[in-house]
Formats: sequence, structure tokens, C-alpha cells
Amino acid sequence: MNIRTSDILVCGKSIKECLADIEAFHGFTAPGLVLGTFMVDWARELVGSDVEADAIVETRHCLPDAIQIFTPCSFGNGWMKVLDWGKFALSLYDKKTLEGYRVWLDLEKARQFPNIYNWYMHLVPKKELPLEVLTGTMIEAKREVLSSCAIRVTQFYESPKKGKIEICSGCGEAYPAVQGSQCLTCQGKGYYEKCQVSGVGS
Amino acid sequence: MNIRTSDILVCGKSIKECLADIEAFHGFTAPGLVLGTFMVDWARELVGSDVEADAIVETRHCLPDAIQIFTPCSFGNGWMKVLDWGKFALSLYDKKTLEGYRVWLDLEKARQFPNIYNWYMHLVPKKELPLEVLTGTMIEAKREVLSSCAIRVTQFYESPKKGKIEICSGCGEAYPAVQGSQCLTCQGKGYYEKCQVSGVGS
Repeated sequence: MNIRTSDILVCGKSIKECLADIEAFHGFTAPGLVLGTFMVDWARELVGSDVEADAIVETRHCLPDAIQIFTPCSFGNGWMKVLDWGKFALSLYDKKTLEGYRVWLDLEKARQFPNIYNWYMHLVPKKELPLEVLTGTMIEAKREVLSSCAIRVTQFYESPKKGKIEICSGCGEAYPAVQGSQCLTCQGKGYYEKCQVSGVGS
Repeated sequence: MNIRTSDILVCGKSIKECLADIEAFHGFTAPGLVLGTFMVDWARELVGSDVEADAIVETRHCLPDAIQIFTPCSFGNGWMKVLDWGKFALSLYDKKTLEGYRVWLDLEKARQFPNIYNWYMHLVPKKELPLEVLTGTMIEAKREVLSSCAIRVTQFYESPKKGKIEICSGCGEAYPAVQGSQCLTCQGKGYYEKCQVSGVGS
């Protein structure tokens, strides 16, 4: 990273600080998050800093963390929705008007940056494209591999409702009444079996 | 918060630092996250600090952020899975052996702390139970409203695979080939309509 590159501000911070934030939250400097930083930065700028914006992310891989690190939206506060659609795209939109911007990895533009194109299309083995080289290309490219578009969100903007709560006759835990006469786990759909381990709390 | 309470360590920090972390990431001191802090703390202790642990959270509301704030697991790195099952429970488990611990809000125990019981079961209007009072009760109760159990995870532990990528003939973006001949958005399932706005990037 040269001095000129490290000087630019993205999401209100230096690239170096962004990379540190990514590593602290995500555990490692995932290339998708480096690209995601520029995507969030652009979407945020287009929507306007004075607008309270919600987020929709079109992939579960990596990109949701760019939203969580660089905006107030998180999975748990419900301001970020994640669609498991496998597209490298995100939208930020005004939660009142539902108007906003979608930003995505534009493959045609990415062809000018073969490292990015080959990485995303799985055309080069990971060991042949060192992480530093790839993220370096991304930092050089900035928004040049992205496109954006003004949108109006038409679904998935609702706040999830909790509905009526019942106490499950099987396990005694609270669960949404809409699931039926018992909770999903007591209906046999659970994700675990109980173990006998010494020293287990009760 | 009295001095004795603020002195205890939860998730390796003082309660005060935990509350600050919650507000910084989640946007506000959600009661579910205060409870969640004690849940993560207990699960983490049971699993053992030397174990590399993945997480499963059984509700999309609030609790996923407790995992994201106080463990290395995030939605985007795939180490946390979220089930929209509406139960106030989470599990941490060894990603190699799949053995771990589930911790949940135990309603029977919570009856000893009416503020917590009434809040969770929606038995008292929010304005009659000020946030400070509710979170104060949670900090006093600590693990006394929780139960835990040793488990072996039997599903949802897989890392999501990305599969074969195609370029969509509709929009020219990359998408998972498994979705069909075009991406979901071009199949008419998208969440937005495009707008004409001056100054939109392309």
C-alpha cells in the first residue's frame, strides 16, 4: 500500500483503519470485505449521510459484515436483512421512503482488473493469488469495479414481528405460538442431541 | 449499578464496558443483549476458552449481536448460524467435535425475577418497565435466570458452499448456477424497482 492509497478515506476512515476493523470483527482480511468497504462507502454517500438507512445484502458470504462494521445496521437489530441469493450486491435505503441505492460488483468493469475478476469467478487457485496482491488490487480499483443504481425497495423491508408467545409443553421454554402445539425442537426439528457430560449446568 | 455489580467480569470485561460495546454495535442497550451477554459468557466458560467454537442462535432478534460482539463468530464469516425459531437460546460448540453447550432463558427460574419474566412474556407495557430497571434486574440476576445443557450438534454446522457461478444473461451479474437459467432477481423475485434519480451512478 503506497502513501497515496493509504491516505484516502473510505467509510470515514483510512484504508489501514478499515482493514484493522475488518480483521477485528471478521477474524481475517477477507477480500470480499475489502471490496465491501468500498461498496458501503459508495452506497452511504449516494443515500446521504443525513438519512437513516436500512440495508439489504444479497449474499450471506462476507458482505454482511461490511454492513455491520461500517454502518449502524446489524443482523440482531434488524436494520440489515440478508438474502442468501449468492450475488455480490448490497442496498442502503431510507427506512421511511424506501428509496435508496444498490451497489454491486460489475463483472464487465472487473475485467479491467484480472485479479478481482479471476478471484470472484474462481478462475485462479487461492495459492496463486496471494491475499496481499488481491486486496492491493481492490484498493487500487476502489469504485472502478462497481456499479450503482437508484432503487425503491418493494419487499423485505418489514420489521419482523414477534407475534404471540406460548410456553412449550415439551421443554417449558417460550416459543412463537404460530409454530403449533409445541416448539420446533420438541417437534423433532432441533439441531442437537443432549449429552451426558460431567459438570454440566442444569 | 452498584460498585459490587459493576466490578464483576462478564465476557472478560466489566458490565459497564459490555453495555458500551452493546450500544456501539447494536445502537442501543437492548435488554435481550444484556441477558445475551451473560448467556455468551456462560456458554464460553462451559465450552472452554481454548476451544475454537462456532455458534448457533435460535432467534433473529437481538441475541445474534451478543454472539457477534462477544465472540469471534459473525454472520458474515459463517461461524454463527441464525435460526429464525423465536427461542431465546444459543449454543457454542467445538467446530471439530461438534460438542458444546446450549444456554437458554429458563422461564421457571425467571419467575423469581418478575421484571424479566414480564418483559419476555410481554406481560407489561414497555413504558411501565423502564429500561434501566429491567437491565438492572438482569445484571443482578446474572446466570440465575438461565439454564445450560451439554449438546452434540447434529445439523446446521456445515459451512455454506458457494457452488458453481454463472453470469446471468439478464443482468450480467454473477449468480449461483443452481438458481436456474437466470438469477432470482431476473426471474422476478427481486426486492426493488429501479428509479430515475438525477445524479445516479451507472
